[in-house]
Amino acid sequence: MKLLNTQNVMIIGLGLMGGSYAKALKRLDFHISATDTNADSIEYALENGIIDEGYTSPDPDALGKADIVIFGLYPNVFKRWIAENQKYFKSGAIITDVTGVKSCIVYDIQNILRDDVEFIAAHPMAGREVYGVRNSTEKMFRDANFLVVPTEKNSEEAIEWCKEMGRLLGFINVTVLSPEEHDKMIGFVSQLTHCIAIALMTCSDSTHLADYTGDSFRDLTRIANINDKMWSELFLLNKEPLLADMDRFISEMQTMRSLLAEDNREGLREKMRLSTQRRAAFNKK
Amino acid sequence: MKLLNTQNVMIIGLGLMGGSYAKALKRLDFHISATDTNADSIEYALENGIIDEGYTSPDPDALGKADIVIFGLYPNVFKRWIAENQKYFKSGAIITDVTGVKSCIVYDIQNILRDDVEFIAAHPMAGREVYGVRNSTEKMFRDANFLVVPTEKNSEEAIEWCKEMGRLLGFINVTVLSPEEHDKMIGFVSQLTHCIAIALMTCSDSTHLADYTGDSFRDLTRIANINDKMWSELFLLNKEPLLADMDRFISEMQTMRSLLAEDNREGLREKMRLSTQRRAAFNKK
Repeated sequence: MKLLNTQNVMIIGLGLMGGSYAKALKRLDFHISATDTNADSIEYALENGIIDEGYTSPDPDALGKADIVIFGLYPNVFKRWIAENQKYFKSGAIITDVTGVKSCIVYDIQNILRDDVEFIAAHPMAGREVYGVRNSTEKMFRDANFLVVPTEKNSEEAIEWCKEMGRLLGFINVTVLSPEEHDKMIGFVSQLTHCIAIALMTCSDSTHLADYTGDSFRDLTRIANINDKMWSELFLLNKEPLLADMDRFISEMQTMRSLLAEDNREGLREKMRLSTQRRAAFNKK
Repeated sequence: MKLLNTQNVMIIGLGLMGGSYAKALKRLDFHISATDTNADSIEYALENGIIDEGYTSPDPDALGKADIVIFGLYPNVFKRWIAENQKYFKSGAIITDVTGVKSCIVYDIQNILRDDVEFIAAHPMAGREVYGVRNSTEKMFRDANFLVVPTEKNSEEAIEWCKEMGRLLGFINVTVLSPEEHDKMIGFVSQLTHCIAIALMTCSDSTHLADYTGDSFRDLTRIANINDKMWSELFLLNKEPLLADMDRFISEMQTMRSLLAEDNREGLREKMRLSTQRRAAFNKK
Protein backbone atom coordinates (compact mmCIF):
# COMPACT_ATOMS: atom_id res chain seq x y z
CA MET A 1 0.00 0.00 0.00
CA LYS A 2 1.39 3.36 -1.02
CA LEU A 3 0.28 6.38 0.96
CA LEU A 4 -0.04 8.52 -2.16
CA ASN A 5 -2.30 5.94 -3.82
CA THR A 6 -4.85 6.20 -1.06
CA GLN A 7 -7.51 8.88 -1.13
CA ASN A 8 -9.64 9.18 1.96
CA VAL A 9 -8.28 10.13 5.35
CA MET A 10 -10.40 10.22 8.50
CA ILE A 11 -9.01 12.04 11.52
CA ILE A 12 -10.59 11.13 14.86
CA GLY A 13 -9.94 13.87 17.41
CA LEU A 14 -9.32 17.21 15.73
CA GLY A 15 -7.09 18.98 18.24
CA LEU A 16 -3.67 20.55 17.83
CA MET A 17 -2.13 17.39 16.40
CA GLY A 18 -5.14 16.16 14.41
CA GLY A 19 -5.54 19.62 12.90
CA SER A 20 -1.87 19.78 11.97
CA TYR A 21 -2.05 16.37 10.26
CA ALA A 22 -5.15 17.62 8.41
CA LYS A 23 -3.36 20.73 7.13
CA ALA A 24 -0.27 18.79 6.03
CA LEU A 25 -2.23 16.03 4.28
CA LYS A 26 -4.73 18.40 2.65
CA ARG A 27 -1.82 20.09 0.90
CA LEU A 28 -0.96 16.68 -0.57
CA ASP A 29 -4.49 16.48 -2.06
CA PHE A 30 -5.96 13.86 0.21
CA HIS A 31 -9.67 14.05 0.92
CA ILE A 32 -9.82 14.87 4.64
CA SER A 33 -12.70 14.01 6.95
CA ALA A 34 -12.67 14.55 10.68
CA THR A 35 -14.67 13.51 13.70
CA ASP A 36 -14.66 15.45 16.95
CA THR A 37 -17.26 15.73 19.69
CA ASN A 38 -16.54 19.46 19.81
CA ALA A 39 -18.84 20.99 17.18
CA ASP A 40 -16.96 24.27 17.32
CA SER A 41 -13.69 22.60 16.23
CA ILE A 42 -15.40 20.89 13.30
CA GLU A 43 -17.13 24.10 12.25
CA TYR A 44 -13.91 26.09 12.43
CA ALA A 45 -12.03 23.47 10.39
CA LEU A 46 -14.71 23.36 7.71
CA GLU A 47 -14.94 27.15 7.47
CA ASN A 48 -11.18 27.46 7.14
CA GLY A 49 -10.79 24.69 4.57
CA ILE A 50 -8.73 22.53 6.92
CA ILE A 51 -11.04 19.55 6.31
CA ASP A 52 -13.50 18.54 3.58
CA GLU A 53 -16.07 16.80 5.75
CA GLY A 54 -16.76 16.95 9.47
CA TYR A 55 -18.69 14.90 12.00
CA THR A 56 -19.38 15.25 15.72
CA SER A 57 -19.94 11.51 16.23
CA PRO A 58 -18.69 8.38 14.42
CA ASP A 59 -20.34 8.30 11.00
CA PRO A 60 -20.67 4.76 9.59
CA ASP A 61 -20.66 5.91 5.93
CA ALA A 62 -17.68 8.22 6.27
CA LEU A 63 -15.70 5.62 8.25
CA GLY A 64 -16.58 2.98 5.68
CA LYS A 65 -14.90 5.09 2.98
CA ALA A 66 -11.69 5.90 4.88
CA ASP A 67 -8.48 4.25 3.61
CA ILE A 68 -6.54 5.75 6.50
CA VAL A 69 -7.83 6.52 10.01
CA ILE A 70 -5.65 8.71 12.23
CA PHE A 71 -6.37 8.85 15.95
CA GLY A 72 -5.59 12.03 17.89
CA LEU A 73 -7.41 10.96 21.07
CA TYR A 74 -6.33 10.48 24.67
CA PRO A 75 -5.11 6.90 25.25
CA ASN A 76 -8.09 5.62 27.23
CA VAL A 77 -10.66 7.28 24.98
CA PHE A 78 -8.84 5.74 21.99
CA LYS A 79 -9.28 2.16 23.29
CA ARG A 80 -12.97 2.67 24.00
CA TRP A 81 -13.52 4.21 20.58
CA ILE A 82 -11.99 1.22 18.81
CA ALA A 83 -14.03 -1.28 20.82
CA GLU A 84 -17.27 0.53 20.03
CA ASN A 85 -16.77 1.68 16.45
CA GLN A 86 -14.32 -0.61 14.65
CA LYS A 87 -17.26 -2.37 13.00
CA TYR A 88 -17.53 0.63 10.65
CA PHE A 89 -13.94 0.47 9.33
CA LYS A 90 -13.42 -0.30 5.64
CA SER A 91 -11.82 -3.70 5.11
CA GLY A 92 -8.08 -3.19 4.44
CA ALA A 93 -7.98 0.20 6.16
CA ILE A 94 -4.83 1.25 7.95
CA ILE A 95 -5.07 2.83 11.39
CA THR A 96 -2.45 4.99 13.07
CA ASP A 97 -2.25 7.29 16.09
CA VAL A 98 -0.27 10.12 17.69
CA THR A 99 -0.25 8.85 21.30
CA GLY A 100 2.73 9.79 23.46
CA VAL A 101 2.90 6.45 25.33
CA LYS A 102 2.94 3.10 23.58
CA SER A 103 3.33 -0.15 25.55
CA CYS A 104 0.08 0.42 27.44
CA ILE A 105 -1.94 0.97 24.30
CA VAL A 106 -0.45 -0.63 21.18
CA TYR A 107 -0.83 -4.26 22.28
CA ASP A 108 -4.34 -3.70 23.63
CA ILE A 109 -5.55 -2.08 20.42
CA GLN A 110 -3.92 -4.73 18.22
CA ASN A 111 -5.48 -7.49 20.32
CA ILE A 112 -9.03 -6.24 19.96
CA LEU A 113 -8.76 -5.01 16.35
CA ARG A 114 -10.45 -6.77 13.41
CA ASP A 115 -8.11 -9.01 11.39
CA ASP A 116 -8.72 -7.15 8.12
CA VAL A 117 -7.54 -3.79 9.50
CA GLU A 118 -3.96 -3.00 10.58
CA PHE A 119 -2.92 -0.65 13.39
CA ILE A 120 0.59 0.78 13.07
CA ALA A 121 1.46 3.08 15.98
CA ALA A 122 3.32 6.36 15.55
CA HIS A 123 4.45 9.19 17.77
CA PRO A 124 5.00 12.58 16.12
CA MET A 125 7.40 14.20 18.61
CA ALA A 126 6.15 17.70 18.04
CA GLY A 127 4.03 19.98 20.15
CA ARG A 128 3.22 23.48 21.22
CA GLU A 129 2.21 25.06 24.53
CA VAL A 130 -1.20 25.87 23.06
CA TYR A 131 -4.07 23.57 22.18
CA GLY A 132 -6.87 22.88 19.76
CA VAL A 133 -7.36 22.96 16.01
CA ARG A 134 -7.15 26.78 15.97
CA ASN A 135 -3.46 26.53 16.91
CA SER A 136 -2.64 23.65 14.60
CA THR A 137 0.20 24.10 12.11
CA GLU A 138 2.36 21.80 10.00
CA LYS A 139 5.32 24.02 10.86
CA MET A 140 5.74 22.17 14.15
CA PHE A 141 6.73 19.03 12.21
CA ARG A 142 9.81 20.66 10.67
CA ASP A 143 12.95 19.86 12.68
CA ALA A 144 10.97 17.29 14.67
CA ASN A 145 11.19 13.49 14.96
CA PHE A 146 8.57 11.03 13.78
CA LEU A 147 8.66 7.66 15.52
CA VAL A 148 7.13 4.55 14.01
CA VAL A 149 6.41 2.03 16.80
CA PRO A 150 5.60 -1.43 15.39
CA THR A 151 5.10 -4.74 17.17
CA GLU A 152 5.67 -8.26 15.83
CA LYS A 153 2.09 -8.21 14.57
CA ASN A 154 2.81 -5.44 12.06
CA SER A 155 3.54 -6.09 8.39
CA GLU A 156 6.66 -4.70 6.71
CA GLU A 157 4.29 -2.94 4.32
CA ALA A 158 2.56 -1.05 7.12
CA ILE A 159 5.89 -0.07 8.70
CA GLU A 160 7.12 1.31 5.36
CA TRP A 161 3.80 3.10 4.81
CA CYS A 162 4.06 4.77 8.22
CA LYS A 163 7.66 5.88 7.61
CA GLU A 164 6.55 7.38 4.31
CA MET A 165 3.76 9.24 6.07
CA GLY A 166 6.24 10.73 8.57
CA ARG A 167 8.35 12.03 5.69
CA LEU A 168 5.32 13.36 3.78
CA LEU A 169 4.10 15.19 6.90
CA GLY A 170 7.40 17.05 6.84
CA PHE A 171 9.34 15.49 9.75
CA ILE A 172 13.08 15.76 9.43
CA ASN A 173 13.80 12.41 11.14
CA VAL A 174 11.83 9.20 10.88
CA THR A 175 12.87 6.36 13.21
CA VAL A 176 11.56 2.91 14.13
CA LEU A 177 11.45 1.84 17.82
CA SER A 178 9.72 -0.96 19.74
CA PRO A 179 6.99 0.10 22.22
CA GLU A 180 9.32 -0.67 25.14
CA GLU A 181 12.26 1.27 23.67
CA HIS A 182 9.90 4.14 22.89
CA ASP A 183 8.51 4.36 26.42
CA LYS A 184 11.93 4.21 28.07
CA MET A 185 13.21 6.94 25.77
CA ILE A 186 10.17 9.17 26.16
CA GLY A 187 10.24 8.76 29.95
CA PHE A 188 13.69 10.30 30.00
CA VAL A 189 13.75 12.91 27.26
CA SER A 190 10.19 14.17 27.57
CA GLN A 191 8.38 13.18 30.76
CA LEU A 192 11.28 13.63 33.18
CA THR A 193 12.03 17.07 31.69
CA HIS A 194 8.39 18.11 32.10
CA CYS A 195 8.48 16.85 35.71
CA ILE A 196 11.57 18.94 36.39
CA ALA A 197 10.07 22.07 34.87
CA ILE A 198 6.92 21.62 36.97
CA ALA A 199 8.88 21.05 40.20
CA LEU A 200 10.99 24.14 39.53
CA MET A 201 7.81 26.21 39.31
CA THR A 202 6.05 24.61 42.28
CA CYS A 203 8.98 24.26 44.74
CA SER A 204 8.71 27.95 45.66
CA ASP A 205 6.82 30.95 44.42
CA SER A 206 9.33 32.66 42.17
CA THR A 207 6.92 34.86 40.25
CA HIS A 208 8.40 38.00 41.84
CA LEU A 209 11.67 37.08 40.12
CA ALA A 210 10.19 37.25 36.62
CA ASP A 211 11.96 40.54 35.90
CA TYR A 212 15.38 39.02 36.59
CA THR A 213 15.21 35.77 34.73
CA GLY A 214 17.50 35.14 31.80
CA ASP A 215 17.09 32.82 28.86
CA SER A 216 18.24 29.73 30.74
CA PHE A 217 15.44 29.92 33.27
CA ARG A 218 12.89 30.77 30.61
CA ASP A 219 14.00 27.87 28.38
CA LEU A 220 13.97 25.45 31.26
CA THR A 221 10.46 26.35 32.39
CA ARG A 222 8.77 26.96 29.03
CA ILE A 223 7.25 23.47 29.27
CA ALA A 224 6.02 24.18 32.82
CA ASN A 225 3.00 25.61 31.01
CA ILE A 226 1.35 22.22 30.71
CA ASN A 227 -1.99 20.59 29.86
CA ASP A 228 -2.70 18.90 33.21
CA LYS A 229 -5.32 16.48 31.90
CA MET A 230 -3.16 15.10 29.10
CA TRP A 231 0.16 15.02 30.93
CA SER A 232 -1.13 13.44 34.15
CA GLU A 233 -2.51 10.65 31.96
CA LEU A 234 0.79 10.29 30.06
CA PHE A 235 2.76 10.16 33.34
CA LEU A 236 0.47 7.52 34.86
CA LEU A 237 0.50 5.40 31.70
CA ASN A 238 4.31 5.35 31.69
CA LYS A 239 4.70 5.09 35.43
CA GLU A 240 7.48 2.52 35.81
CA PRO A 241 10.04 3.98 33.37
CA LEU A 242 9.30 7.50 34.63
CA LEU A 243 9.68 6.55 38.31
CA ALA A 244 13.05 4.94 37.54
CA ASP A 245 14.19 8.12 35.74
CA MET A 246 12.97 10.35 38.57
CA ASP A 247 14.87 8.23 41.09
CA ARG A 248 18.09 8.45 39.09
CA PHE A 249 17.73 12.21 38.69
CA ILE A 250 16.81 12.90 42.34
CA SER A 251 19.76 10.80 43.50
CA GLU A 252 22.10 12.77 41.21
CA MET A 253 20.77 16.09 42.54
CA GLN A 254 21.49 14.78 46.05
CA THR A 255 25.04 13.93 45.01
CA MET A 256 25.52 17.45 43.63
CA ARG A 257 24.11 18.84 46.88
CA SER A 258 26.60 16.82 48.93
CA LEU A 259 29.54 17.90 46.77
CA LEU A 260 28.57 21.54 47.29
CA ALA A 261 27.90 21.12 51.04
CA GLU A 262 31.35 19.53 51.43
CA ASP A 263 33.10 22.27 49.38
CA ASN A 264 34.22 19.55 47.00
CA ARG A 265 35.30 21.79 44.14
CA GLU A 266 36.98 19.02 42.16
CA GLY A 267 33.91 16.79 42.48
CA LEU A 268 31.68 19.58 41.16
CA ARG A 269 34.06 20.29 38.30
CA GLU A 270 34.11 16.61 37.37
CA LYS A 271 30.30 16.57 37.13
CA MET A 272 30.38 19.73 35.04
CA ARG A 273 32.98 18.30 32.67
CA LEU A 274 30.98 15.08 32.23
CA SER A 275 27.85 17.15 31.63
CA THR A 276 29.60 19.30 29.01
CA GLN A 277 31.06 16.25 27.30
CA ARG A 278 27.72 14.42 27.11
CA ARG A 279 25.76 17.49 26.06
CA ALA A 280 28.02 17.79 23.02
CA ALA A 281 26.32 14.70 21.56
CA PHE A 282 23.10 16.69 21.40
CA ASN A 283 24.64 19.58 19.47
CA LYS A 284 25.58 17.58 16.41
CA LYS A 285 22.17 17.56 14.81
CA MET B 1 29.99 62.09 37.25
CA LYS B 2 28.42 61.48 33.86
CA LEU B 3 29.53 58.40 31.97
CA LEU B 4 29.61 60.22 28.67
CA ASN B 5 31.87 62.93 30.10
CA THR B 6 34.55 60.39 30.96
CA GLN B 7 37.09 59.31 28.39
CA ASN B 8 39.35 56.49 29.38
CA VAL B 9 38.10 53.00 30.11
CA MET B 10 40.37 50.19 31.33
CA ILE B 11 39.04 46.63 31.13
CA ILE B 12 40.81 44.09 33.35
CA GLY B 13 40.19 40.58 32.08
CA LEU B 14 39.38 40.55 28.39
CA GLY B 15 37.19 37.46 28.04
CA LEU B 16 33.71 37.04 26.64
CA MET B 17 32.22 39.69 28.90
CA GLY B 18 35.17 42.10 28.95
CA GLY B 19 35.38 41.90 25.16
CA SER B 20 31.66 42.56 24.79
CA TYR B 21 31.91 45.62 27.07
CA ALA B 22 34.86 46.81 24.96
CA LYS B 23 32.91 46.51 21.72
CA ALA B 24 29.83 48.27 23.10
CA LEU B 25 31.81 51.13 24.69
CA LYS B 26 34.13 51.57 21.70
CA ARG B 27 31.10 52.30 19.57
CA LEU B 28 30.29 55.13 21.99
CA ASP B 29 33.74 56.65 21.32
CA PHE B 30 35.42 55.83 24.59
CA HIS B 31 39.15 55.21 24.56
CA ILE B 32 39.43 51.52 25.50
CA SER B 33 42.45 49.92 27.14
CA ALA B 34 42.55 46.33 28.31
CA THR B 35 44.75 44.17 30.51
CA ASP B 36 44.80 40.38 30.23
CA THR B 37 47.52 37.87 31.09
CA ASN B 38 46.67 36.08 27.85
CA ALA B 39 48.81 37.79 25.18
CA ASP B 40 46.81 36.14 22.41
CA SER B 41 43.57 37.77 23.58
CA ILE B 42 45.20 41.21 23.70
CA GLU B 43 46.77 40.76 20.28
CA TYR B 44 43.48 39.61 18.75
CA ALA B 45 41.61 42.56 20.27
CA LEU B 46 44.18 45.07 19.03
CA GLU B 47 44.25 43.60 15.53
CA ASN B 48 40.47 43.65 15.30
CA GLY B 49 40.06 47.18 16.62
CA ILE B 50 38.21 46.02 19.72
CA ILE B 51 40.59 47.95 21.99
CA ASP B 52 42.93 50.90 21.53
CA GLU B 53 45.66 49.81 23.94
CA GLY B 54 46.52 46.45 25.43
CA TYR B 55 48.63 45.15 28.31
CA THR B 56 49.47 41.69 29.62
CA SER B 57 50.17 42.94 33.16
CA PRO B 58 48.94 45.91 35.21
CA ASP B 59 50.45 49.06 33.67
CA PRO B 60 50.84 51.92 36.18
CA ASP B 61 50.64 54.67 33.52
CA ALA B 62 47.58 53.26 31.75
CA LEU B 63 45.80 52.60 35.06
CA GLY B 64 46.64 56.09 36.22
CA LYS B 65 44.77 57.54 33.23
CA ALA B 66 41.63 55.40 33.50
CA ASP B 67 38.43 57.19 34.57
CA ILE B 68 36.58 53.89 34.63
CA VAL B 69 37.99 50.45 35.45
CA ILE B 70 35.84 47.42 34.60
CA PHE B 71 36.73 44.04 36.10
CA GLY B 72 35.93 40.87 34.18
CA LEU B 73 37.94 38.58 36.47
CA TYR B 74 37.03 35.53 38.58
CA PRO B 75 35.95 36.60 42.10
CA ASN B 76 39.07 35.50 43.97
CA VAL B 77 41.47 36.84 41.36
CA PHE B 78 39.57 40.13 41.46
CA LYS B 79 40.18 40.61 45.21
CA ARG B 80 43.88 39.82 44.91
CA TRP B 81 44.23 42.19 41.96
CA ILE B 82 42.71 45.08 43.92
CA ALA B 83 44.93 44.47 46.94
CA GLU B 84 48.06 44.44 44.81
CA ASN B 85 47.37 47.12 42.20
CA GLN B 86 44.92 49.68 43.56
CA LYS B 87 47.83 52.03 44.24
CA TYR B 88 47.90 52.79 40.50
CA PHE B 89 44.27 53.95 40.24
CA LYS B 90 43.59 57.56 39.29
CA SER B 91 42.08 59.53 42.15
CA GLY B 92 38.32 59.79 41.61
CA ALA B 93 38.17 56.74 39.34
CA ILE B 94 35.09 54.58 39.38
CA ILE B 95 35.41 50.80 39.50
CA THR B 96 32.81 48.26 38.46
CA ASP B 97 32.68 44.52 37.76
CA VAL B 98 30.68 41.76 36.07
CA THR B 99 30.87 39.13 38.82
CA GLY B 100 27.95 36.69 39.10
CA VAL B 101 28.00 36.52 42.93
CA LYS B 102 27.96 39.59 45.12
CA SER B 103 27.79 39.29 48.95
CA CYS B 104 31.09 37.44 49.13
CA ILE B 105 32.95 40.05 47.12
CA VAL B 106 31.38 43.51 47.21
CA TYR B 107 31.93 44.18 50.92
CA ASP B 108 35.48 42.81 50.85
CA ILE B 109 36.48 44.98 47.90
CA GLN B 110 34.84 48.09 49.35
CA ASN B 111 36.59 47.50 52.69
CA ILE B 112 40.08 47.36 51.23
CA LEU B 113 39.59 50.02 48.54
CA ARG B 114 41.20 53.46 48.70
CA ASP B 115 38.86 56.23 49.91
CA ASP B 116 39.25 58.32 46.74
CA VAL B 117 38.04 55.54 44.43
CA GLU B 118 34.49 54.12 44.39
CA PHE B 119 33.49 50.54 43.61
CA ILE B 120 29.92 50.08 42.37
CA ALA B 121 29.11 46.43 41.66
CA ALA B 122 27.14 45.28 38.65
CA HIS B 123 26.00 41.99 37.17
CA PRO B 124 25.27 41.92 33.44
CA MET B 125 22.93 38.91 33.24
CA ALA B 126 24.02 37.87 29.79
CA GLY B 127 26.14 35.01 28.60
CA ARG B 128 26.88 32.51 25.90
CA GLU B 129 27.98 28.87 25.91
CA VAL B 130 31.30 29.90 24.36
CA TYR B 131 34.22 31.78 25.85
CA GLY B 132 36.90 34.34 25.25
CA VAL B 133 37.21 37.67 23.49
CA ARG B 134 36.88 35.98 20.07
CA ASN B 135 33.24 35.16 20.90
CA SER B 136 32.42 38.50 22.46
CA THR B 137 29.46 40.43 21.12
CA GLU B 138 27.28 43.29 22.34
CA LYS B 139 24.29 41.47 20.90
CA MET B 140 24.08 39.36 24.03
CA PHE B 141 23.12 42.49 26.03
CA ARG B 142 19.92 43.03 24.06
CA ASP B 143 16.89 41.53 25.82
CA ALA B 144 19.06 40.94 28.90
CA ASN B 145 18.98 42.38 32.42
CA PHE B 146 21.64 44.61 33.96
CA LEU B 147 21.74 44.58 37.75
CA VAL B 148 23.31 47.37 39.77
CA VAL B 149 24.24 46.03 43.22
CA PRO B 150 25.09 48.88 45.64
CA THR B 151 25.81 48.79 49.36
CA GLU B 152 25.29 51.56 51.93
CA LYS B 153 28.80 52.74 51.12
CA ASN B 154 27.87 53.72 47.58
CA SER B 155 26.99 57.29 46.55
CA GLU B 156 23.76 58.06 44.71
CA GLU B 157 25.95 59.47 41.96
CA ALA B 158 27.75 56.15 41.42
CA ILE B 159 24.48 54.21 41.44
CA GLU B 160 23.04 56.55 38.77
CA TRP B 161 26.26 56.31 36.77
CA CYS B 162 26.09 52.51 36.82
CA LYS B 163 22.44 52.48 35.75
CA GLU B 164 23.33 54.78 32.87
CA MET B 165 26.15 52.43 31.86
CA GLY B 166 23.73 49.46 31.77
CA ARG B 167 21.45 51.40 29.44
CA LEU B 168 24.34 52.58 27.23
CA LEU B 169 25.63 49.01 26.93
CA GLY B 170 22.26 48.15 25.43
CA PHE B 171 20.53 46.20 28.22
CA ILE B 172 16.76 46.25 28.03
CA ASN B 173 16.25 46.21 31.81
CA VAL B 174 18.31 47.95 34.46
CA THR B 175 17.46 47.11 38.08
CA VAL B 176 18.96 47.87 41.51
CA LEU B 177 19.25 45.08 44.10
CA SER B 178 21.16 44.67 47.38
CA PRO B 179 23.98 42.06 47.39
CA GLU B 180 21.82 39.72 49.53
CA GLU B 181 18.75 40.06 47.29
CA HIS B 182 20.96 39.55 44.27
CA ASP B 183 22.51 36.33 45.57
CA LYS B 184 19.19 34.83 46.64
CA MET B 185 17.69 35.63 43.25
CA ILE B 186 20.68 34.34 41.26
CA GLY B 187 20.81 31.14 43.34
CA PHE B 188 17.31 30.31 42.17
CA VAL B 189 17.03 31.58 38.60
CA SER B 190 20.55 30.83 37.44
CA GLN B 191 22.55 28.48 39.66
CA LEU B 192 19.76 26.03 40.49
CA THR B 193 18.82 25.78 36.81
CA HIS B 194 22.44 25.06 35.86
CA CYS B 195 22.59 22.41 38.61
CA ILE B 196 19.47 20.75 37.22
CA ALA B 197 20.79 20.74 33.67
CA ILE B 198 24.05 19.17 34.85
CA ALA B 199 22.28 16.49 36.92
CA LEU B 200 20.04 15.64 33.98
CA MET B 201 23.13 15.00 31.86
CA THR B 202 25.11 13.12 34.52
CA CYS B 203 22.31 10.98 36.09
CA SER B 204 22.51 8.53 33.20
CA ASP B 205 24.25 8.32 29.86
CA SER B 206 21.57 9.49 27.46
CA THR B 207 23.82 10.29 24.51
CA HIS B 208 22.31 7.40 22.50
CA LEU B 209 18.99 9.25 22.74
CA ALA B 210 20.29 12.35 20.94
CA ASP B 211 18.35 11.44 17.77
CA TYR B 212 15.06 11.39 19.62
CA THR B 213 15.21 14.53 21.67
CA GLY B 214 12.80 17.34 21.03
CA ASP B 215 13.11 21.03 21.76
CA SER B 216 12.15 20.70 25.42
CA PHE B 217 15.08 18.45 26.25
CA ARG B 218 17.45 20.54 24.15
CA ASP B 219 16.32 23.79 25.78
CA LEU B 220 16.58 22.31 29.23
CA THR B 221 20.12 21.02 28.76
CA ARG B 222 21.61 23.81 26.62
CA ILE B 223 23.26 25.20 29.76
CA ALA B 224 24.64 21.75 30.66
CA ASN B 225 27.51 22.81 28.42
CA ILE B 226 29.26 24.64 31.22
CA ASN B 227 32.60 26.24 32.11
CA ASP B 228 33.53 24.04 35.09
CA LYS B 229 36.16 26.38 36.52
CA MET B 230 33.91 29.44 36.60
CA TRP B 231 30.69 27.75 37.66
CA SER B 232 32.19 25.63 40.45
CA GLU B 233 33.55 28.87 41.88
CA LEU B 234 30.18 30.63 41.53
CA PHE B 235 28.39 27.70 43.21
CA LEU B 236 30.84 27.61 46.14
CA LEU B 237 30.73 31.37 46.62
CA ASN B 238 26.93 31.30 46.84
CA LYS B 239 26.73 28.06 48.79
CA GLU B 240 24.05 28.81 51.40
CA PRO B 241 21.34 30.26 49.12
CA LEU B 242 22.01 27.56 46.51
CA LEU B 243 21.84 24.69 49.04
CA ALA B 244 18.50 26.01 50.29
CA ASP B 245 17.17 26.14 46.72
CA MET B 246 18.46 22.64 45.93
CA ASP B 247 16.75 21.29 49.05
CA ARG B 248 13.44 22.87 48.12
CA PHE B 249 13.66 21.56 44.57
CA ILE B 250 14.73 18.00 45.56
CA SER B 251 11.92 17.83 48.10
CA GLU B 252 9.40 18.91 45.44
CA MET B 253 10.69 16.26 43.01
CA GLN B 254 10.20 13.70 45.79
CA THR B 255 6.62 14.90 46.27
CA MET B 256 5.96 14.51 42.53
CA ARG B 257 7.49 11.05 42.68
CA SER B 258 5.17 10.03 45.53
CA LEU B 259 2.10 11.38 43.74
CA LEU B 260 2.98 9.30 40.68
CA ALA B 261 3.85 6.18 42.69
CA GLU B 262 0.47 6.42 44.46
CA ASP B 263 -1.45 6.96 41.19
CA ASN B 264 -2.62 10.28 42.61
CA ARG B 265 -3.91 11.78 39.38
CA GLU B 266 -5.62 14.74 41.04
CA GLY B 267 -2.47 15.57 43.03
CA LEU B 268 -0.38 15.56 39.83
CA ARG B 269 -2.94 17.71 38.03
CA GLU B 270 -2.93 20.18 40.90
CA LYS B 271 0.87 20.54 40.64
CA MET B 272 0.58 20.99 36.88
CA ARG B 273 -2.08 23.66 37.22
CA LEU B 274 -0.03 25.56 39.81
CA SER B 275 3.01 25.27 37.54
CA THR B 276 1.07 26.59 34.53
CA GLN B 277 -0.38 29.44 36.55
CA ARG B 278 3.00 30.55 37.94
CA ARG B 279 4.81 30.16 34.63
CA ALA B 280 2.37 32.67 33.11
CA ALA B 281 4.09 35.42 35.13
CA PHE B 282 7.24 34.79 33.11
CA ASN B 283 5.52 35.16 29.75
CA LYS B 284 4.47 38.75 30.23
CA LYS B 285 7.77 40.36 29.36
